Amino acid sequence: MPLVKFIPQNKEIDVVTGTNLLKAADDAGLYIEGDCAGKGTCGKCRVKITDGSCGEATAAEIKHLSKAELKAGWALACQRTVEGNCTIEVPVQKDAHTRKTTLAGGVEILQAEAAVEKIAVKLSRPAVKDQTADLERLLAELKRGELQVKPRELTNFPSMLRKNSYSVTTAVSGNRILSIEPGDTTDQLYGVAFDIGTTTIVGSLIDLNSAKVIAVAAVTNPQNIYGADVISRITHASQSKDGLKQLQDKVIEAVNKILHDLLRKTKIARDRIYEVIAVGNTTMSHLFMGIDPTYLAPAPFIPAYSKALEVEAAEIRIRINPSGRVIFLPNIAGYVGSDTVGVILAADLDQPGDNCAAIDIGTNGELVLRANGKLMACSTAAGPAFEGAQIKQGMRAAAGAIETVSYLKGRIELGMIDDAPACGICGSGLIDAASALLDAGLVEPSGRFVNPEENPDKVPAQFKDRLRRGEGGYEFILVSGKDSETGEDIVISQGDLRELQLAKGAINAGLMILLKEAGISVKDLDRVLLAGAFGNYVRKESALGIGLLPQMPAEKIIAIGNAAGDGARMALASMTMRKRAFTLPKTVIHMELSTRPDFQEFFVDALPFRKMQ
Amino acid sequence: MPLVKFIPQNKEIDVVTGTNLLKAADDAGLYIEGDCAGKGTCGKCRVKITDGSCGEATAAEIKHLSKAELKAGWALACQRTVEGNCTIEVPVQKDAHTRKTTLAGGVEILQAEAAVEKIAVKLSRPAVKDQTADLERLLAELKRGELQVKPRELTNFPSMLRKNSYSVTTAVSGNRILSIEPGDTTDQLYGVAFDIGTTTIVGSLIDLNSAKVIAVAAVTNPQNIYGADVISRITHASQSKDGLKQLQDKVIEAVNKILHDLLRKTKIARDRIYEVIAVGNTTMSHLFMGIDPTYLAPAPFIPAYSKALEVEAAEIRIRINPSGRVIFLPNIAGYVGSDTVGVILAADLDQPGDNCAAIDIGTNGELVLRANGKLMACSTAAGPAFEGAQIKQGMRAAAGAIETVSYLKGRIELGMIDDAPACGICGSGLIDAASALLDAGLVEPSGRFVNPEENPDKVPAQFKDRLRRGEGGYEFILVSGKDSETGEDIVISQGDLRELQLAKGAINAGLMILLKEAGISVKDLDRVLLAGAFGNYVRKESALGIGLLPQMPAEKIIAIGNAAGDGARMALASMTMRKRAFTLPKTVIHMELSTRPDFQEFFVDALPFRKMQ
Repeated sequence: MPLVKFIPQNKEIDVVTGTNLLKAADDAGLYIEGDCAGKGTCGKCRVKITDGSCGEATAAEIKHLSKAELKAGWALACQRTVEGNCTIEVPVQKDAHTRKTTLAGGVEILQAEAAVEKIAVKLSRPAVKDQTADLERLLAELKRGELQVKPRELTNFPSMLRKNSYSVTTAVSGNRILSIEPGDTTDQLYGVAFDIGTTTIVGSLIDLNSAKVIAVAAVTNPQNIYGADVISRITHASQSKDGLKQLQDKVIEAVNKILHDLLRKTKIARDRIYEVIAVGNTTMSHLFMGIDPTYLAPAPFIPAYSKALEVEAAEIRIRINPSGRVIFLPNIAGYVGSDTVGVILAADLDQPGDNCAAIDIGTNGELVLRANGKLMACSTAAGPAFEGAQIKQGMRAAAGAIETVSYLKGRIELGMIDDAPACGICGSGLIDAASALLDAGLVEPSGRFVNPEENPDKVPAQFKDRLRRGEGGYEFILVSGKDSETGEDIVISQGDLRELQLAKGAINAGLMILLKEAGISVKDLDRVLLAGAFGNYVRKESALGIGLLPQMPAEKIIAIGNAAGDGARMALASMTMRKRAFTLPKTVIHMELSTRPDFQEFFVDALPFRKMQ
Repeated sequence: MPLVKFIPQNKEIDVVTGTNLLKAADDAGLYIEGDCAGKGTCGKCRVKITDGSCGEATAAEIKHLSKAELKAGWALACQRTVEGNCTIEVPVQKDAHTRKTTLAGGVEILQAEAAVEKIAVKLSRPAVKDQTADLERLLAELKRGELQVKPRELTNFPSMLRKNSYSVTTAVSGNRILSIEPGDTTDQLYGVAFDIGTTTIVGSLIDLNSAKVIAVAAVTNPQNIYGADVISRITHASQSKDGLKQLQDKVIEAVNKILHDLLRKTKIARDRIYEVIAVGNTTMSHLFMGIDPTYLAPAPFIPAYSKALEVEAAEIRIRINPSGRVIFLPNIAGYVGSDTVGVILAADLDQPGDNCAAIDIGTNGELVLRANGKLMACSTAAGPAFEGAQIKQGMRAAAGAIETVSYLKGRIELGMIDDAPACGICGSGLIDAASALLDAGLVEPSGRFVNPEENPDKVPAQFKDRLRRGEGGYEFILVSGKDSETGEDIVISQGDLRELQLAKGAINAGLMILLKEAGISVKDLDRVLLAGAFGNYVRKESALGIGLLPQMPAEKIIAIGNAAGDGARMALASMTMRKRAFTLPKTVIHMELSTRPDFQEFFVDALPFRKMQ
């Protein structure tokens, strides 16, 4: 079988002739980014064939790659197949979260109040006069009433007792013994909170004795080889043989990789992790638990379940203490998942308070509104544009992404992540760019570029060379090829602006519906919380400038970080928070937008770049 | 690798040269009987090498086999190893229970009151106006409050609902959903009760809607390759690498074989079995659950646990509904197991009543006494002699076993199981034989054969040729070689009588201790119950004659059949009975005999063959 070598990662794999390169990379344990599930439409899975041959360039590659690039060996991994031994260079992608994950996030963890209790005891020795069985001896000393225990926990219990002079520590959760350990291990009590994003999975290791975060790790969600968005993954789960299993395997594998990283960093023993709490959108939750998500896709968008599901770690192959518990927080609706439950918890929105909206823009966008004693939520198909999908040169927030664009004193200034040469534009850069182009008068509030041929005087002289006609209308050159990483011009196109308008319109319209149902208007809003990594990096002025956020003093727009993950950590560390999370599906009012005629009205009304009020 | 062929079973296996024949048979799925764990001392694993060579006869074989037999190819499987391709004839052993297992046993099952409830519902269809998730829709209709459900049960739930017009049946146990099934399956509700004997494993398939037994199957406990008695198996579990796992695997394999037989016979679907309830001695219970039994063997004989343990079927690889529950009833002490709990349940001994003793003689012997408001139990190392172990030509109750021996009008009459030519003697035959020889004056109450040389006139003329000097003292020929299956004389030896005396002495002494502790004497006993297969076949007159049972009218000695198994069935079919079983470890007073000086006195006093009173 041909040998495929991936550099600079130095991963090798033998595959059968004809194997797709994207598949080969996946089999070798390498994740190549892409948004279109290998259809050839996103053009993002760029690799360079440095040795060997992998067939001819396809139409899709000719569209996405320049002649020079093709000649240099660049290709799209999804378009090529292995013909013999070959060496493939995979551009190193910085992890999307390297600059985004901060310990403890934006919200303080509550007082530690873990679900698992550890109790150290020293037992009396048995004798003919006291033949009490080992377990009953332990149960009597624990004084926690009737506890259930799995046979697995007892396998070596008798000899463990005797080797440790009858001193053991028991981990108890509810009425169950999770673990019996030699000696006193009460100081070793850990759990991990996971935020299972469509794009990125983040795990936080928590010391349950102190409720403190002691390590964080993240990986790209490896389900991305089946498509960037939830609909592609639902389709794969529904229509491919073993598709559901493949998707579950991928996410479990990623979770185990994060666990491995966390344990390696902290030198904590695997068996001392007793709980995993996960949040994610409803599709992620179904796929994680291996449950058919088919009926999430078509109307009326029905989840298989809503309540929190619990499963034993061993049963789902998650490598913590095998008797440990893995709990996915409940979802609210087909497109309002436990990630939103996490946001509500982290922002205390299920408690009485001011009129407050929370906007979580990830791969999908979810909105929550607490107002007039009601707690409401909805979802909008708004997210991917902000993560770089469907944007011509869009990319996620990694090194070289244009993240700030400002118009100042007649000049357009750019900022790149890590000050690296530009190679694309990320979500915050896109909003900034639109706002700057509006400010510069190059884009009209309708979202159209000024036509330089019809209105040459509207285009300032310094930008005349940068506004040009592209394939699908005009485009503005942010960085010229001579300064970019790729050697290509980095542009923002008319199509990109339209994508941004659609996303913004959906979010605006969703918020308007929630306000309408609560019986209040934009001016009654006391605060707007921006959840998610996006919220940390978007410039409020730009977001207000294009009308993405409701008009209000900038200090009332508050970025709260990865609130979904924070909520998961709270539910892990505090039983009070966990119980609150469990009740949310019954208390949150879900608004289904897709079939409301008024949604369309609000949406069309919100498309232009103008202040939202 | 050499091919070993076993006939007439027609099983073949490739093994490495040097593999022990007993091991090869085991690997091929054939159980060859034996009591000494391959040490060559019991002489029971007889096979005939009909083709190929398996080495030379060992000293052990020369001891156990005649020259003619050796010449004809007979060998002991444990003594030979595979040298090349060979064909091995394995005598077909009738299952020990073919004549012993009767449907419904001796005791009526109570009113059905199963732990698992099945509820058929038809759900309303979801719509945009009612986006309730599938599971929550089901839970609302079930009206059983908060139920836990494993993700596994939901894997295909959404499509099952839609394919079956929203009609499903849910199996609920406590606060857990075990299964969600298409359509109405309320009439399919089954469980299996297992009696895990050291020697034989019996499973009874119960319709939990009616509490009726609908099929029974049994196999030899395949752990026997690691020794016939519990001590050999504890030793194997403690001292061999993977020994515990091997022993657990064997019993689980046997349980799965029985399940396979039961399902094949009844054409019931595997997934419609929701519970397994098992009983067995404490060692069997530890091995079944894969828990280290090491400390059961040395004083003070401490079990790892006493309470009933529950495990999910999938987790212990028992092939019923994967979410079904497997419960081993609690044990009372190291040598008073859940089989005794079963006897107590079946005989209602935990309820107020008369002064009643129950004697269960299997591979071990357990005694229970209800008297003066107390319920007590003890165990005695008494059993194996009654199952043919340690008896020169002893065998279990299978075709050809001498099962009755009577002395009538100067003649000794024999009865063989299935009227087959005699090939050995089983437990009831042994007691009968001792009693008949006593009656004939050939054996003295001390247990010694009359010495025909010293007292020739004490030996009736018709028996002069049959009482002869053997290796270890005198022996009496029951069947001469010309009439036997094996061509050998079948005898009862002085050693056999001594074994019987030791067993009888232990049982008598145990009972005397219980009576003493209850403050009553033999004459205060109202009834004696004989549990186990042995009780069904022992002739009361003979047992009374040698003093094995307390002197009382024969009608007050009642054989109650496989009461341990009956108890398991009751605990399976009735939650009331199950709850009673769960409390027994706390209410039964266990008497440890091994360290009591009075036990030795009672024991020595009880060795002679004289009436117990």
